[in-house]
Amino acid sequence: MTAPAQCAQFHAIAQRVNNWGRWGPEDERGTLNLVTDEVVRAAAATVRSGRRVPLALPLQQDGVQSGMIPGRVNPLHTMVAVNMELFGPGTVATSDDVVTMGLQAGTHWDALPHVSHGGKLYNGRPADTVTAHGRAAFSGIDKAGPLVSRGVLLDVARAHGVQSLAAEHAVGPEDLDAAEELGGVRVGQGDIVLVRTGQMRHYLAGDRDGYAHPSPGLSLYAPEWFHARDVAAVANDTLTFEIFPPEIEDLWLPVHALHLVEMGMLQGQNWNLEELSLACAEEGRYAFLLSAQPEPFTGATGAPVAPVAVL
Amino acid sequence: MTAPAQCAQFHAIAQRVNNWGRWGPEDERGTLNLVTDEVVRAAAATVRSGRRVPLALPLQQDGVQSGMIPGRVNPLHTMVAVNMELFGPGTVATSDDVVTMGLQAGTHWDALPHVSHGGKLYNGRPADTVTAHGRAAFSGIDKAGPLVSRGVLLDVARAHGVQSLAAEHAVGPEDLDAAEELGGVRVGQGDIVLVRTGQMRHYLAGDRDGYAHPSPGLSLYAPEWFHARDVAAVANDTLTFEIFPPEIEDLWLPVHALHLVEMGMLQGQNWNLEELSLACAEEGRYAFLLSAQPEPFTGATGAPVAPVAVL
Amino acid sequence: MTAPAQCAQFHAIAQRVNNWGRWGPEDERGTLNLVTDEVVRAAAATVRSGRRVPLALPLQQDGVQSGMIPGRVNPLHTMVAVNMELFGPGTVATSDDVVTMGLQAGTHWDALPHVSHGGKLYNGRPADTVTAHGRAAFSGIDKAGPLVSRGVLLDVARAHGVQSLAAEHAVGPEDLDAAEELGGVRVGQGDIVLVRTGQMRHYLAGDRDGYAHPSPGLSLYAPEWFHARDVAAVANDTLTFEIFPPEIEDLWLPVHALHLVEMGMLQGQNWNLEELSLACAEEGRYAFLLSAQPEPFTGATGAPVAPVAVL
Amino acid sequence: MTAPAQCAQFHAIAQRVNNWGRWGPEDERGTLNLVTDEVVRAAAATVRSGRRVPLALPLQQDGVQSGMIPGRVNPLHTMVAVNMELFGPGTVATSDDVVTMGLQAGTHWDALPHVSHGGKLYNGRPADTVTAHGRAAFSGIDKAGPLVSRGVLLDVARAHGVQSLAAEHAVGPEDLDAAEELGGVRVGQGDIVLVRTGQMRHYLAGDRDGYAHPSPGLSLYAPEWFHARDVAAVANDTLTFEIFPPEIEDLWLPVHALHLVEMGMLQGQNWNLEELSLACAEEGRYAFLLSAQPEPFTGATGAPVAPVAVL
Repeated sequence: MTAPAQCAQFHAIAQRVNNWGRWGPEDERGTLNLVTDEVVRAAAATVRSGRRVPLALPLQQDGVQSGMIPGRVNPLHTMVAVNMELFGPGTVATSDDVVTMGLQAGTHWDALPHVSHGGKLYNGRPADTVTAHGRAAFSGIDKAGPLVSRGVLLDVARAHGVQSLAAEHAVGPEDLDAAEELGGVRVGQGDIVLVRTGQMRHYLAGDRDGYAHPSPGLSLYAPEWFHARDVAAVANDTLTFEIFPPEIEDLWLPVHALHLVEMGMLQGQNWNLEELSLACAEEGRYAFLLSAQPEPFTGATGAPVAPVAVL
Repeated sequence: MTAPAQCAQFHAIAQRVNNWGRWGPEDERGTLNLVTDEVVRAAAATVRSGRRVPLALPLQQDGVQSGMIPGRVNPLHTMVAVNMELFGPGTVATSDDVVTMGLQAGTHWDALPHVSHGGKLYNGRPADTVTAHGRAAFSGIDKAGPLVSRGVLLDVARAHGVQSLAAEHAVGPEDLDAAEELGGVRVGQGDIVLVRTGQMRHYLAGDRDGYAHPSPGLSLYAPEWFHARDVAAVANDTLTFEIFPPEIEDLWLPVHALHLVEMGMLQGQNWNLEELSLACAEEGRYAFLLSAQPEPFTGATGAPVAPVAVL
Repeated sequence: MTAPAQCAQFHAIAQRVNNWGRWGPEDERGTLNLVTDEVVRAAAATVRSGRRVPLALPLQQDGVQSGMIPGRVNPLHTMVAVNMELFGPGTVATSDDVVTMGLQAGTHWDALPHVSHGGKLYNGRPADTVTAHGRAAFSGIDKAGPLVSRGVLLDVARAHGVQSLAAEHAVGPEDLDAAEELGGVRVGQGDIVLVRTGQMRHYLAGDRDGYAHPSPGLSLYAPEWFHARDVAAVANDTLTFEIFPPEIEDLWLPVHALHLVEMGMLQGQNWNLEELSLACAEEGRYAFLLSAQPEPFTGATGAPVAPVAVL
Repeated sequence: MTAPAQCAQFHAIAQRVNNWGRWGPEDERGTLNLVTDEVVRAAAATVRSGRRVPLALPLQQDGVQSGMIPGRVNPLHTMVAVNMELFGPGTVATSDDVVTMGLQAGTHWDALPHVSHGGKLYNGRPADTVTAHGRAAFSGIDKAGPLVSRGVLLDVARAHGVQSLAAEHAVGPEDLDAAEELGGVRVGQGDIVLVRTGQMRHYLAGDRDGYAHPSPGLSLYAPEWFHARDVAAVANDTLTFEIFPPEIEDLWLPVHALHLVEMGMLQGQNWNLEELSLACAEEGRYAFLLSAQPEPFTGATGAPVAPVAVL
């Protein structure tokens, strides 16, 4: 295994994209600071048709988790009441639900403290500020604040003319450029970028293991592109987010380390971009209003989200 | 106890507001059908400042549930991994979370099958289509579809010049009219109406039991007002949604029965409208873009939501 | 599919083994009534060596459940505190655990209301006395009372000279007779009978799916043998307890229906009898004191148990 | 606050009762090593009447936890199936349960790594061998092995002629001596000692907060008595086990530290000793066979137990 800092390529990129201190030593929101009121006004102005496309997978026992990641359990959803006549026979009857699930199990955002490397979290905070009982003392998902901005679909699979990218395809800067060109859009400050690989099609076709891995995903060289454009957040349609197994042998999860720790940028996984891909192609527009507020679990290192794109 | 149908007042209102069959016998979305693309375009056009106001309470063990409602448990949020070096010493370390919670425990939407009366659910479906293992066969929260529309804050507490309404205050048509006038806005088709009572201030001040009950809330006579305006959904800042204990002795949860069963209209509880109240007053505008997509639990009778108002 | 009562063989056996009313119309304990103080005194007298053999599988995420039975989840065990210094730095630090699990997921007892057929539970009670919110109103596992008696190992695999029975082996009366003869013991009133098939060896060797099914197990003709001997309870080392798929096509779970509903007899699954098989063979004794108290979940239709045999 | 090692009284006792290395540097079972086959044979020989007394509280939402201990939640027990006809209409129908609960929430054993002090666990192992994902690497409850021995009830409340001890009563050596005399029994090697304070009567009468604290419990001076007698384990009928608030100001949980860390001795809490108190008084015998096997959660720092005394 390789500690990320011992890998020259990683180290050089990390230095170039690092945002520690950029928004002050107390900051817990990272690149979400780039979403200004002005950005949001412009995002609202992108709405033309009023068409709404939901991007979350259903939350159910038969979800995307295959057991590959220990403890990340699909939702176990049970009823604590079924037509319970709480106030006596014949009165209004209520049904109530309860769930147990991994916060990172379905369509979700990773919060900044979801990973650490070299003992550090975003903004230089020590990794041991995450504990079993206190959870994340800094930058938990509840600190993210409202997450509405312009969304841009970078449909890499469509740009390559395929339904889904091959498992060994690491999505790098040239892919992002090509998808921008396909979409006729330029990614800019505060955008939330949705990168479509088409990998979700495996899960939707019933192949959970095939979806999990091996998987195409972001390349080690993508974060610098996002950094240059001052992107607010990135999400895609895979379980691992970045290519898995990794491009450089034994350099595990480098994109996680760059995004979450070095840049302070939220990343989303297991987003279903299939309907959105069709909608954008039909409307010939790849920018839209995106609302993607995570459930505000206090101190969580990730949370479910039910994103909606409004075209 | 009184079965709702045996109460003359309830029965008369129910007949007037009933929407069964209005969108066909197969419909599972009720009044959400009123949110058209046109409504959404108009909603996007309300955005002026770009200011975003989140409306969800933090999800934590110390949440709003006091034990009054059996089985509706506050989130128990634990870590299944804390800086776990999955790939060996020195590699990127990951932290993961898991939660157990009532789907109706925090800021949430009630789905249409959350209540039944007279053995029936919305659109005349039998109550026994909700089961422990199958959950809700019809109109589960996953059937709601994208929930973005124009939001309108009806700040009843502010219209009355108080910080929060008295516990015995049943919010009726005249209160809704007064709040409309305060806001300089007219509620119309497809709107999501947020009714502020100020009751949330008790919870925010640390008084969980005082928040739970007795509580002001919607009157038995409010649903007809919403029906006349063709509202898409209603949410407020209380635990019980409607006044509790009820206005008519032994007529329990009549508003639930009218909204969810008769009208087929989603209702939201435990929404934190305090910051929004300030924002609307400051900006002098009470209509905005509202994004309030529930987490799509398959067949659930309710689900957490992290709503955001964009002014 | 076949309703059990429509199958002539099932029907005839059911009539012969039925215990409804035998211990009065109010009874909720069934054959556990057969464990008298005298039986327990005799059980204690079987102790010779003092050797103790535990029979429960470890409770962990990697348990026996393979996903075949919907909702029956392996234990998800997390820490809510790890060395938390609750009273200040340097004070005694505590660690605490929490678990989510199916009550029937590991080594467990099925309670009498775990199954119904023809709309009936043990002692003729209606099946709808089990509800989502009330759980089992009658004969829940908490009603079982203390479960200590003489245990007898019927080592069918050893009697056949094999490590584990073939998947198509339905364990019937002749197998039970042979195992009695091997053990030099006669099963009698109030005994808890442990039937070893050796199927557990598949799970212990890492083959969870192979363990689950197809599986040897009790034959439709075994219950009458247990009834004739006035056995108190039966447990074995399989997931399905009875042979699976069943001996008679489309007659599903007939042994469950006979034991739990007709006889009112608890049955145990996923018991690890491997060490006990060795111990009994070494000591040349197949009867012992067995302590197998289920966790007393109120109204549960099953519960984990950590049984111990004392030789 | 006071670190235990800085308190002279604690320090002196700790040195005298310390068992580190007594059963070798690899040992994970501590004083349970004192339960030999011979001890168990003698325990079985104590059985006279065959009367069985269960000592576990029911496991239910309305359990003993009051919220005082963060994250230690009462059982939330739901049904994942209610009379589900898995194989088609009319076939045998099954009901299944699922639970979420704190492992230390009900009647339970604390495992040795449940507390640490000075950064150490039993046998000198470092406290950081307990982690969120790995749980307890050493001495988890699954390492305890079979837990059957002679039980002795020391009925301190009865010896004092009261129904329950006053909250400020710290149970010390003289109380244990008095209860021994009442019982006509001498505690010896390998015994499991049950100390009755009567505090459980508060919970059984519906006063959960009164049960929780203030509470009588073991004194700082009790462990040395247990050490002198070579006791295997101790349990009682309180939430906090030791007197709470503590005898010496700011010296929190000293008995936990002495038993679990210094001596390596399991301790049990929330045991219901009321029926046993009556049974022992009626039979005039205070020693019996005790079976108290914890549920074997892998690496857990505690586990539920459903103990049974056999007189």
